[in-house]
Amino acid sequence: MSRVTDVLNRQHIELPSWAFANSGTRFKVFPQAGVPRDPYEKVADAAQVHKYTGAAPTVALHIPWDKTDDYADLARFAQEQGVTLGTINSNVFQDNDYMLGSVTNPDAGVRRKATDHLLECIDIMDRTGSRDLKLWFSDGINYPGQDDIRERQDRLAAALAEVYARLGDHQRMLLEYKLFEPAFYATDVPDWGTAYAHTLTLGEKAVVCVDTGHHAPSTNIEFIVAVLLRAGKLGAFDFNSRFYADDDLMVGAADPFQLFRILFEVLRGGGFDRDPGAMDEIAFMLDQCHNIEPKIPGQIRSVMNVQEATAKALLVDREALAAAQAEGDVLGANAVFMDAYNTDVRPLLASLREEKGLDPDPMGAYRRSGYAEKIVAERIGGTQAGWGA
Amino acid sequence: MSRVTDVLNRQHIELPSWAFANSGTRFKVFPQAGVPRDPYEKVADAAQVHKYTGAAPTVALHIPWDKTDDYADLARFAQEQGVTLGTINSNVFQDNDYMLGSVTNPDAGVRRKATDHLLECIDIMDRTGSRDLKLWFSDGINYPGQDDIRERQDRLAAALAEVYARLGDHQRMLLEYKLFEPAFYATDVPDWGTAYAHTLTLGEKAVVCVDTGHHAPSTNIEFIVAVLLRAGKLGAFDFNSRFYADDDLMVGAADPFQLFRILFEVLRGGGFDRDPGAMDEIAFMLDQCHNIEPKIPGQIRSVMNVQEATAKALLVDREALAAAQAEGDVLGANAVFMDAYNTDVRPLLASLREEKGLDPDPMGAYRRSGYAEKIVAERIGGTQAGWGA
Amino acid sequence: MSRVTDVLNRQHIELPSWAFANSGTRFKVFPQAGVPRDPYEKVADAAQVHKYTGAAPTVALHIPWDKTDDYADLARFAQEQGVTLGTINSNVFQDNDYMLGSVTNPDAGVRRKATDHLLECIDIMDRTGSRDLKLWFSDGINYPGQDDIRERQDRLAAALAEVYARLGDHQRMLLEYKLFEPAFYATDVPDWGTAYAHTLTLGEKAVVCVDTGHHAPSTNIEFIVAVLLRAGKLGAFDFNSRFYADDDLMVGAADPFQLFRILFEVLRGGGFDRDPGAMDEIAFMLDQCHNIEPKIPGQIRSVMNVQEATAKALLVDREALAAAQAEGDVLGANAVFMDAYNTDVRPLLASLREEKGLDPDPMGAYRRSGYAEKIVAERIGGTQAGWGA
Amino acid sequence: MSRVTDVLNRQHIELPSWAFANSGTRFKVFPQAGVPRDPYEKVADAAQVHKYTGAAPTVALHIPWDKTDDYADLARFAQEQGVTLGTINSNVFQDNDYMLGSVTNPDAGVRRKATDHLLECIDIMDRTGSRDLKLWFSDGINYPGQDDIRERQDRLAAALAEVYARLGDHQRMLLEYKLFEPAFYATDVPDWGTAYAHTLTLGEKAVVCVDTGHHAPSTNIEFIVAVLLRAGKLGAFDFNSRFYADDDLMVGAADPFQLFRILFEVLRGGGFDRDPGAMDEIAFMLDQCHNIEPKIPGQIRSVMNVQEATAKALLVDREALAAAQAEGDVLGANAVFMDAYNTDVRPLLASLREEKGLDPDPMGAYRRSGYAEKIVAERIGGTQAGWGA
Repeated sequence: MSRVTDVLNRQHIELPSWAFANSGTRFKVFPQAGVPRDPYEKVADAAQVHKYTGAAPTVALHIPWDKTDDYADLARFAQEQGVTLGTINSNVFQDNDYMLGSVTNPDAGVRRKATDHLLECIDIMDRTGSRDLKLWFSDGINYPGQDDIRERQDRLAAALAEVYARLGDHQRMLLEYKLFEPAFYATDVPDWGTAYAHTLTLGEKAVVCVDTGHHAPSTNIEFIVAVLLRAGKLGAFDFNSRFYADDDLMVGAADPFQLFRILFEVLRGGGFDRDPGAMDEIAFMLDQCHNIEPKIPGQIRSVMNVQEATAKALLVDREALAAAQAEGDVLGANAVFMDAYNTDVRPLLASLREEKGLDPDPMGAYRRSGYAEKIVAERIGGTQAGWGA
Repeated sequence: MSRVTDVLNRQHIELPSWAFANSGTRFKVFPQAGVPRDPYEKVADAAQVHKYTGAAPTVALHIPWDKTDDYADLARFAQEQGVTLGTINSNVFQDNDYMLGSVTNPDAGVRRKATDHLLECIDIMDRTGSRDLKLWFSDGINYPGQDDIRERQDRLAAALAEVYARLGDHQRMLLEYKLFEPAFYATDVPDWGTAYAHTLTLGEKAVVCVDTGHHAPSTNIEFIVAVLLRAGKLGAFDFNSRFYADDDLMVGAADPFQLFRILFEVLRGGGFDRDPGAMDEIAFMLDQCHNIEPKIPGQIRSVMNVQEATAKALLVDREALAAAQAEGDVLGANAVFMDAYNTDVRPLLASLREEKGLDPDPMGAYRRSGYAEKIVAERIGGTQAGWGA
Repeated sequence: MSRVTDVLNRQHIELPSWAFANSGTRFKVFPQAGVPRDPYEKVADAAQVHKYTGAAPTVALHIPWDKTDDYADLARFAQEQGVTLGTINSNVFQDNDYMLGSVTNPDAGVRRKATDHLLECIDIMDRTGSRDLKLWFSDGINYPGQDDIRERQDRLAAALAEVYARLGDHQRMLLEYKLFEPAFYATDVPDWGTAYAHTLTLGEKAVVCVDTGHHAPSTNIEFIVAVLLRAGKLGAFDFNSRFYADDDLMVGAADPFQLFRILFEVLRGGGFDRDPGAMDEIAFMLDQCHNIEPKIPGQIRSVMNVQEATAKALLVDREALAAAQAEGDVLGANAVFMDAYNTDVRPLLASLREEKGLDPDPMGAYRRSGYAEKIVAERIGGTQAGWGA
Repeated sequence: MSRVTDVLNRQHIELPSWAFANSGTRFKVFPQAGVPRDPYEKVADAAQVHKYTGAAPTVALHIPWDKTDDYADLARFAQEQGVTLGTINSNVFQDNDYMLGSVTNPDAGVRRKATDHLLECIDIMDRTGSRDLKLWFSDGINYPGQDDIRERQDRLAAALAEVYARLGDHQRMLLEYKLFEPAFYATDVPDWGTAYAHTLTLGEKAVVCVDTGHHAPSTNIEFIVAVLLRAGKLGAFDFNSRFYADDDLMVGAADPFQLFRILFEVLRGGGFDRDPGAMDEIAFMLDQCHNIEPKIPGQIRSVMNVQEATAKALLVDREALAAAQAEGDVLGANAVFMDAYNTDVRPLLASLREEKGLDPDPMGAYRRSGYAEKIVAERIGGTQAGWGA
């Protein structure tokens, strides 16, 4: 059991600053009372999640949404709140210039501008001490013939190479893929194969980020996790869940069994054995949209869902599993696997929290804290943060 | 051939006013120069589409986006431009109150407000002389357990019944379904079966609207068209096309063969034989988002795509088809079908346009007209219309 | 708790005789040692499942696979084994005449033959005392234009009407739908809407059978269950699970959370309150292919999976759920729902089995019984049953 | 135009011997009169397709379905019929030993047997003079936990390495991927990324085979084609079409526009410029199941569909396309693309056939030849070939 508790005690999940801001669909962004108005308030809210879970000590920033003149000051503020700044997320999809693409745009000037933004993000990383630069490109085309699919790959490769060259010794590039949206015909990095191929060309510091909501229907995500781990190219997760497209629901909400299977492959591939901060660490991050539910408890619940699925993965009797697999005992092997999944791990996690001096019930503790009411009362005026700021 | 040209000459496709406004994805709305700032400018732009295609004489309004104090004046303006006002589209998805639903909201007050909006839309129809009220509900839930799926059906049924009772003798309710988005777990009217069941309960004036982008992957849309026509419950199409989800690309852009098959079932089911303005007419409407392409030519192209697919459907040698089908000649029947599809109908449509005194090349004619440059130059200041207004 | 145990104690799941025969894919049927060679051996194997679960007292037959000269004798044999005969499943997809369809075939002679088979199935029901006739039609077309989609609906309606008219007072018709396979372009009963529409036309004794593996990707099955229950048209389930198409894996194996949600809607809709044998009973049936796992334990496991999901559904605190839903408390309502799902119900089910005098561990009890070794040793020679016999 | 006719005149499409045998679904194989009983009759039928299209001069064999004692004799026979033997397809999915996998089976003995079969296929290639060994593995698992996903990759890599080492200087390995079926949870080579990664490790003689029916819903196949061509790793196509899963319908039957887009990317990537027989040639092969339509005309039609889509791809005005793309003219670029697609290329292909001395109407010419009636009359007795032989 010490292995189980050891991993659970060490596991940490990075929170995205933007999860605390307003978000929505193309139809409507429903504003929520008390939502942060600047990066400081986002960090403060993120710190609440860590306060009650003890498992979310870092906050990812999104540039330019979290742009600030003084990152040292923001980092200091974070530390006061009990957290630190984490991954830097680039954004090359919201400037008017990017309508037809950023680094793959047919216009060389736009490509230059986009690449410069990515380089600037590394400057920020230098100041925040971040290890990871996460790149997601919304680039793609809506109509057959609109642009040259292959040439866009060349442009992408050129930009990535330039950015890669700028990385410091202890910095990584996480390349994210996504099947579609906002591009509706051909996306330039649509699948793990494309991301893998580019990171392979770039070198060791380039690895793939698996967003669990970015696949075609029926895709076996744990297979991808296993294959990327085997190739040494899995760098990070963006966790969320979906029933349809990139729904960005709370991780574990749509298919908790899938989350368990994914985390079992992480375990199987040695993903929980990496040193914190090491260049081969698997970064576990949330990337969700709390469109209709309150943000902070939505994040707390998500962290707990990852913890529960991890606990179940750790409970798999791997010796028994290997024995049944070796014998070709289909039902026996599946039963060993399901036994772990069917276990109620909530008491185990509650007692681990208590050992750490935390409330065994993070949701209840947050609710009772009065923080939700406090921010609603205090955050009057100003402009609520959203995807645009 | 006279049957072919007859149908093509009579076919008209309704344009949505909102197609001329800015639209985008949740990531970004890219504004376009020259976009309308009010319903009048939208109608003026729509009239351009009709001017060059001769096939788009009506404009659908969206309430409250096109709300105005004087619909008679707007109707007069439309007539001056050469078009008339058409279907009224309700909107119960953009008020802050609708975060958890409109007519299916757990809160009775919100349901009342939403139903009142729908009733108000019929008031507007009385003034515009519109026959059709189109209802699309974004209602649904994001998380399992969030609300009671079945009770939401009861609430929906109650609201629909109240609205139905308010319809005049020459007014119809078009009930649209959509698999998902913005709700990401369970949508209250997700499929044709649900829409069909409700319209059946309501009565003859309630019919189903098929939006070609609102289905699960692999759904055979022409089958649904055939079945709804057989049941006397097909009322309208919202045309657009998609590769992934509700992409809202130009109709015919993603799968022109599918569009042909759909229009063939319309033909097969007698859908082109209805009298204009009659209560059993199939309304052909566009419902697209021109996120990255210019709006007016995007609409012209879409109208042409529907015309071309219709022409091909009309060219199917139905006698030969029936003979091959009766004999169980799989390849023979398919070949008859494909012969029509593989025909280049552009010359036929060009000559029909010329007979009507139109330019055979609507795209070129519009481009040469200078209208695009004119609106860019003239529409300075004000707030561009979008999905919010 | 008495409500929970009461439902669990009463719940029974019907087993399909063909689950004990060989099955496979188009690529290969892997034969398994000890597989039955006739209906008697199938019934004997099914009785083993009931012996250890106490929850599977009936066996569905498939005609002509289980055709016999003396159904009374088969029924007697079943009773000796501790089970009874259940639903009669028709088969109009394996005769050479059915290549282009059965009741929807363009050839009237083939349609006659197919309809006669369905009528014959009712004759058999009269002899076996079965209440339910289950109809699944593989009918459809592979190529656009191959046959007339709408006319096939007319032919289907005619055949169904004739069969419906032949039903006795205490007999029902269960109409199953399936998206595709073996037809690959248009299937004649592809979705719940089509099945619903036909059963509505036919009358009260016609109801819909939901096979959990027969939907398009992303389809919300529990929604369909809720809607059919509301309409009084849900008659039965064919349980199995899938990751891709109609994979026919063990129920609960691919998405146990989905199974829980489905059974919760059954509960919500009053589906567990019907009297056994009544005309409004929801029939819970398995319909799976144990292509690579042993058949009898595969069925035992499946019965247990349904029991566990049912137990979790019953554990939902519906009062708390309703309260959270009424308040629009998204996270609270979801949490109530998930609390039940996350509960480990295996101890509860084990103790219920013990109360009934059963082994708390059905899989282990069967394994220790030596039955598997016995049938391998005894069933030498003859032709193993499969989908063809 | 000479470029267009040049490519069309040179294009050849390989026929699979098994397309002429009976095939079906797991529900039923409908036998067709006149179907071949041995490899010689399959080759004779394939030669008919070439006789009327002039574009299908090679026949792929499937081992063991086409196993024979004297390949030299079979090759001689083929030549007499006017065709030659082509790709060798391995089969490690139909022996009883392969129930839990072939080269990825947990049992080392089964892996050895499977690998030996692959090596034997290269022996056959040495005798037939074939360049290409096509590998498709049905290997995978049906249930979570059934076997170790990652270890199966290791086993696969080991087997591939051994087979690769055995290849002659002018021999290639084509590695095919497929999302699912017959494995229903995790397939060992499910996507292009996995196939790409393995071929990259193996070396230059290992390339990827794209089967157009083997993808998840919504997958953009032409993107994969573009990316694989860019990487120098596209080796071959297995052409067919699908609406749902691996339906194996005639290529171009389900989505002719997609086929056009795929062939345009082939053209764009230089895929039509390779020398016949060269190590970098893109092999165009059919891989279809004519379950309900006659085999030979089904193949003729498929060859014609590929020719028509190729002709349209060649007609794209690439200069105009590039200009519009460079300007970011979304609608203009799409219009250039669609202009080619909307062209009726049947007259062009008919005249090219006439120039070659062929009948301009291959389907009609075959029908009039009386060959269909002749084989029905002559092929009496014996066992019809199918997927098992």
